[in-house]
Amino acid sequence: MTSEKTYTLHPIGKVCRDVDGIFINVDERYRPALQDLAHFSHVLVLAWADQFDTPEHRSRTTANPPHAPDRPTGIFATRSPVRPNPILLTPCRLLGVDQTAGRVMVENLDFYDGTPVLDLKAYYPVSDRVREAHIAPWLVDWPQWLPEEGLGLDDIPRV
Amino acid sequence: MTSEKTYTLHPIGKVCRDVDGIFINVDERYRPALQDLAHFSHVLVLAWADQFDTPEHRSRTTANPPHAPDRPTGIFATRSPVRPNPILLTPCRLLGVDQTAGRVMVENLDFYDGTPVLDLKAYYPVSDRVREAHIAPWLVDWPQWLPEEGLGLDDIPRV
Repeated sequence: MTSEKTYTLHPIGKVCRDVDGIFINVDERYRPALQDLAHFSHVLVLAWADQFDTPEHRSRTTANPPHAPDRPTGIFATRSPVRPNPILLTPCRLLGVDQTAGRVMVENLDFYDGTPVLDLKAYYPVSDRVREAHIAPWLVDWPQWLPEEGLGLDDIPRV
Repeated sequence: MTSEKTYTLHPIGKVCRDVDGIFINVDERYRPALQDLAHFSHVLVLAWADQFDTPEHRSRTTANPPHAPDRPTGIFATRSPVRPNPILLTPCRLLGVDQTAGRVMVENLDFYDGTPVLDLKAYYPVSDRVREAHIAPWLVDWPQWLPEEGLGLDDIPRV
């Protein structure tokens, strides 16, 4: 049983990291979709790890995660950007939404400058926040919450 | 500024709802990526709302969500399956992982039978769980946690 059908992603914008902060720059045609987003504290940013969009990377099924480099782990048990569909997913705190300019300012984000953004989804506790979650035993020392300052490129290795 | 470049998704499997429960059936070539997933309590399921993969649906920027039908809301502030890239995202409790058979059994899931699945990501509190999150004021009565039994097709309207 193989799913041969494919689907096409159209990026809605890009990550921008500059001296003023970290932003999602949203293409003009999608800016009306930003309406009301500022009423939420956090947003899930979905993006495409385009540097790993190669047949070789996309056929890999195990990773050696930074937290356990000697322990090859199935890709679906990791948050490695190397995966069959290299979709990145990180929640971050919203600092501001400028709908007219198409600029969404976020507190922190572990995506590189220029990364194509696929979707923004307001963070809904009822849909996203699991009260009792346990993780693999070799990760028991990991924090139990998203850091207040969010996930950046330096502080926390991508799981 | 418009992102004209597109990217191609290859589904990794499909949602299966049958008398035995709710499963993700994973294509054979991706089954090695399921290694270690059973060590986690929850998994994020990313899927493609293929019934809304039309130019008309994908150009919509506002939705009338079921919880507020008279309040048109920007798509990015909702979890509507109608969006520029109709990626669905729901965490669910893992009931079992049969790597050999490519069957991941979940507690509940608000996706229809046959929905193409794009990715599975183990739920990591450090990456996914926001301690202090607030939502739009017209949604203040909403639950603060994913229900223990997960999000199903009947109980909770898609936000």
